[in-house]
Amino acid sequence: MAGSSALAPPGFPAELHAGNRERLVAALRGHLSGSARPLRGLALLQGGEEQNRHCTDHLELFRQESYFAYLFGVREPGFYGAIDIASGQSILFAPRLPPDYVVWMGEIKPLSYFKDRYKVDVVFYVDEIAQVLQDKFSEHGKALLFLLYGKSSDSGNYSKPATFEGIEKFDTDLSTLHPIITECRVIKSDMEIALMQYANDVSSEAHIEVMRQVKPGMKEYQLESIFLHHAYMYGACRHCSYTCICATGENSSVLHYGHTAAPNDRTLNDGDMALMDMGAEYSFYGSDITCSYPINGKFNGNQTIVYNAVLKAHNAVISHMQPGVKWIDMHKLAEQTILESLEKENIIHGDIGAMMARRLGAVFMPHGLGHLLGIDTHDPGGYPEGLERPKEPGLSSLRTIRELKEGMVITVEPGCYFIDALLRPARDDPISSKFFNWEEIEKYKNFGGVRIESDLYVTAHGCKNMTNCPRETWEIEAVMAGAPWPSCIAKT
Amino acid sequence: MAGSSALAPPGFPAELHAGNRERLVAALRGHLSGSARPLRGLALLQGGEEQNRHCTDHLELFRQESYFAYLFGVREPGFYGAIDIASGQSILFAPRLPPDYVVWMGEIKPLSYFKDRYKVDVVFYVDEIAQVLQDKFSEHGKALLFLLYGKSSDSGNYSKPATFEGIEKFDTDLSTLHPIITECRVIKSDMEIALMQYANDVSSEAHIEVMRQVKPGMKEYQLESIFLHHAYMYGACRHCSYTCICATGENSSVLHYGHTAAPNDRTLNDGDMALMDMGAEYSFYGSDITCSYPINGKFNGNQTIVYNAVLKAHNAVISHMQPGVKWIDMHKLAEQTILESLEKENIIHGDIGAMMARRLGAVFMPHGLGHLLGIDTHDPGGYPEGLERPKEPGLSSLRTIRELKEGMVITVEPGCYFIDALLRPARDDPISSKFFNWEEIEKYKNFGGVRIESDLYVTAHGCKNMTNCPRETWEIEAVMAGAPWPSCIAKT
Repeated sequence: MAGSSALAPPGFPAELHAGNRERLVAALRGHLSGSARPLRGLALLQGGEEQNRHCTDHLELFRQESYFAYLFGVREPGFYGAIDIASGQSILFAPRLPPDYVVWMGEIKPLSYFKDRYKVDVVFYVDEIAQVLQDKFSEHGKALLFLLYGKSSDSGNYSKPATFEGIEKFDTDLSTLHPIITECRVIKSDMEIALMQYANDVSSEAHIEVMRQVKPGMKEYQLESIFLHHAYMYGACRHCSYTCICATGENSSVLHYGHTAAPNDRTLNDGDMALMDMGAEYSFYGSDITCSYPINGKFNGNQTIVYNAVLKAHNAVISHMQPGVKWIDMHKLAEQTILESLEKENIIHGDIGAMMARRLGAVFMPHGLGHLLGIDTHDPGGYPEGLERPKEPGLSSLRTIRELKEGMVITVEPGCYFIDALLRPARDDPISSKFFNWEEIEKYKNFGGVRIESDLYVTAHGCKNMTNCPRETWEIEAVMAGAPWPSCIAKT
Repeated sequence: MAGSSALAPPGFPAELHAGNRERLVAALRGHLSGSARPLRGLALLQGGEEQNRHCTDHLELFRQESYFAYLFGVREPGFYGAIDIASGQSILFAPRLPPDYVVWMGEIKPLSYFKDRYKVDVVFYVDEIAQVLQDKFSEHGKALLFLLYGKSSDSGNYSKPATFEGIEKFDTDLSTLHPIITECRVIKSDMEIALMQYANDVSSEAHIEVMRQVKPGMKEYQLESIFLHHAYMYGACRHCSYTCICATGENSSVLHYGHTAAPNDRTLNDGDMALMDMGAEYSFYGSDITCSYPINGKFNGNQTIVYNAVLKAHNAVISHMQPGVKWIDMHKLAEQTILESLEKENIIHGDIGAMMARRLGAVFMPHGLGHLLGIDTHDPGGYPEGLERPKEPGLSSLRTIRELKEGMVITVEPGCYFIDALLRPARDDPISSKFFNWEEIEKYKNFGGVRIESDLYVTAHGCKNMTNCPRETWEIEAVMAGAPWPSCIAKT
C-alpha cells in the first residue's frame, strides 16, 4: 500500500449542517413548548477568530469552533450565525474584508458565495448584525437571543457567548441553548456517520501504512510523520483530531504521550511494543484510533499475554454494546475481562470480585473505557445535568457514564499498562498487595502498555465498528510482513 | 532523493541560548551604564502557556513564545525565566506539576533536569518566584524587574509583560528591556546561523522533493504534504515557520495563499506555474524559501520571461548586499530590475525612472523585498525607535528599511505578479496607463505570479546564501526531470 490508497475524499456536505440546524430547531421548539414558553427568538453563535502567536504576526492555522462548525460548517474565521426558532430561517454574518485582502489573502467572496456554499437562507455582514436582528426579527418588541453558554465536562471551561456592538438592545437567554445543542451533537445523523466513517477509513489506512514501515532504529516522530502524510496526501485531512501519540517501549504507559514536553523523540528498539494513538479529522469530524504492536513485527510471550488480555476486553465490550446498556457497566466489564486474563497468567491472584470491589482494575487501566466522539475528540454531552461523575479510581476518569443510545459514536479503548506510580501504592497497601504476583509483575517492569481503540457507532440493536485495522496478533504479524489488508473502503 | 535524505538533525544547543543571555546582559549593562543607572535588577520573562481550543480540552501543540525561546530555549509550557544583570546569573522557574501528571503526560522531571538541559545557574518552582527574587536578589531594598513590554512592528500587538502573585512588592521597568533584547535578536551568533543553516538545508531538500513529485492532476495540498513529510521524517522538523503557501495557476498571485479560507485545494493543470513558499523550523529557528516552477517541468515562453525577470532581481540584490547598504535601496533595485526586464519584453514601455517615481514597480511587486528572519518568520527589529515606515505603495509593505549589518539574516524575495486588483487602477489612471502595453499584459491574465526567495546571511564584506535550491530555469528543468542536485549539506 506504500504510496497508494483507495481513498476518495468526499465533497463538502452542506446538507449535513443544514440537517444539524433542523434538529436543533426542532429540539428548541420542543423545549419551549414543553415549558409553555413562546416559540420566539433566535439562536445566535459567534464563530472562532484567527489567533496570532503571542505578540507576533504569525497566524496559527485556523480551525472553526466546534459548536459553530456543527451548525454552519463554516471554515472561515470571523463569522456569526443565527437561526430563527419560529421560521427555521438561517442567517450567516460574514466579516467585511478590507480591499487589500484580495492581494494578500485571496478573492473577496460575495455574500452569495457563502449563501450557496453553506446553504443558509440569507447572508449579511457582521457589522449589520444589530440592525438585521432588530429590523427583521423583532416584530413584537425586543428580539430574544439564545446565546451559547455552558460548561465542558471535559475541560471545565465555559463556552463564550456571542457578543457584538449593540447586543444590549436585545433580550438574551444564556441557559437554554447549551444543553439542547449539546444533546443534539450526541446523536449523529447518517450524514455525520458517513463523514466519521471516512475519517476512520483514512486513519485505518494510515495506521496500516505506519505498521508496514516501522522498524528498529527509527524515531517515534517518523511514525507520526508517516501517519500525517498518508492522511493528508491521500485522505485530504489537513488536521488531526488530536496530537499524535507515538509511544514505544516504556513511553507506551504514558497515556497522553507526544506533547511538547514528551515529543515522540525516542529511538525504537528491537523488542519494544509500540502504542500508536492517532486519528485524522475530515471536514470537522474526527476519528480516534489506537493500534498496539511489536515494532519488530513479532509478538513475544509477554507481549501476547498483555495484548490478548486487552483485545478480549475490547471484543467483549463491543459484543455487549446496544441501546440501553450503561457505559459504566461496559467499563467494569473491560476491567473484569482484563483482570481475569491477568489472573489466568498468574500476574495477579485471588478473587476477581474482591479485586473489582477494591478498584484494582484501575491500577492497570487508570483511564476511562471510551468517550463520545464527533466534531471534538472528546465530544460534549458526557454528563448532562443530573448525571454525576463517579469518585472511585478509574471510574472517575470516565468521560461519560450514560446509557447508550442509537446514533451515539463512542470509542472503545481498553488498555493495560504497567505504571510504576500506580503499582507502588498497590504494593505498599497490605490488603491490595496480596492480589499481585510481584515476581511476575517484575518481568513487565519496562514493558509500558497496550491500548486497542476503535470507534463504535451504536445501532438500533447493537453497534458497528467504524475502524478497520488488523486486531488479532496473527493478523497484525501478517500485515506487518506485507500481507494485504482488506480495503477500508470496500468493507461493508 | 525520494524517501532518502542527507540530513542529520543536530542535538539541542543549550549553549546557543546561554550565549543569547550573555549578549543580552552585556547590552543591558552597556545601556544602564550609558544612562548612568546602577547595574541592578533582573530581566524577567514569562514563557508561553498551552492553549485549549475554545471551551474544549483539545490542546494545541505548544510552541514556546519567541523571546522566551531566544533566552532560554525551553520547550515546555508554564515556565518563567530571569537573568540577574549584575551577576549574569540565570534562573528558571518550572511549573509544579500535579502527581497524576506522571500517569497522563509522562515523567515529572526534577529541577536538576531543567538545570542540566537548559544550562542555567539555578532552577526553582514557579510558586517560589516572589520569595526567591525577594530573598536572593533584593540586597538593598526592593528588587527591580525589567519586564518585556513593547510593540511588534509587524502585528501592531504588544508583548505581555510577566506577571505573578506578589509582583506588586517589586519595582518594575516596562520600557528598557524590549528594544534591547529585540536588537540582540537582530544580529545572529554563529550558533544561531548554524541552526538556521540546518533549517535551510532541510527546507531546500524538501522543496526539491516536491519539485520531483509534482505533476498535473495532483492537488496543491499534496505538495504541502510532501514538504511537511520530508521536513519531519528526515529533518526532525515538527513545526514549520508559517503555513505552507502552495499556490498554482492564478492562485500564485495571492501573496499569502494557503490559509483556511484558501486552503491549497486547487487541482494542478498542465501549463500552470507553481509558487511554493514553505519553510521548516528546527529547535525554534526558521527558514523561509520560495521556489517557482512550471508544474509540467518545462518553462514556456511567458513563464521564462517572468521567471528570469524575478531571478535577475534576486541575483542583483544578492550581489549588492553588504554591511552599510540600505534595505530600501535594495527594494528599489529589485523593482527597477524587474521593470527593466518587463520593458525589454515590451510588457511595459517608457522611462524606467518615471515609472519608479510613480511607484509602478509596486503594481507588479506589492510586497516588500524581504524581512529579518530568525525565531520568528518576521523576526522583530525591523523598525527600531526613530525609523519610520514609508507611506508610498510597495515601500509601505517593507518590514524593515534598515541598513544591513554583519550578522543579520534577511530574506530576499522579489516577485512579479499579474494582479487584476492592482492592474485595474493603473489602467484607469490616465498617466500610469500609458506605461503599460495592455495588449501584451492581457496575455498574462491568468498567469498568477512568480516569487523567488532565499535566506541571506550578511557577512563582513558581502552576504552568504543559506538556501540551496535550483534557481536557473535549466537547473530547475533538469532537477524536475530527475537530475541529481548537490546535497544541501555538502555545499560550502
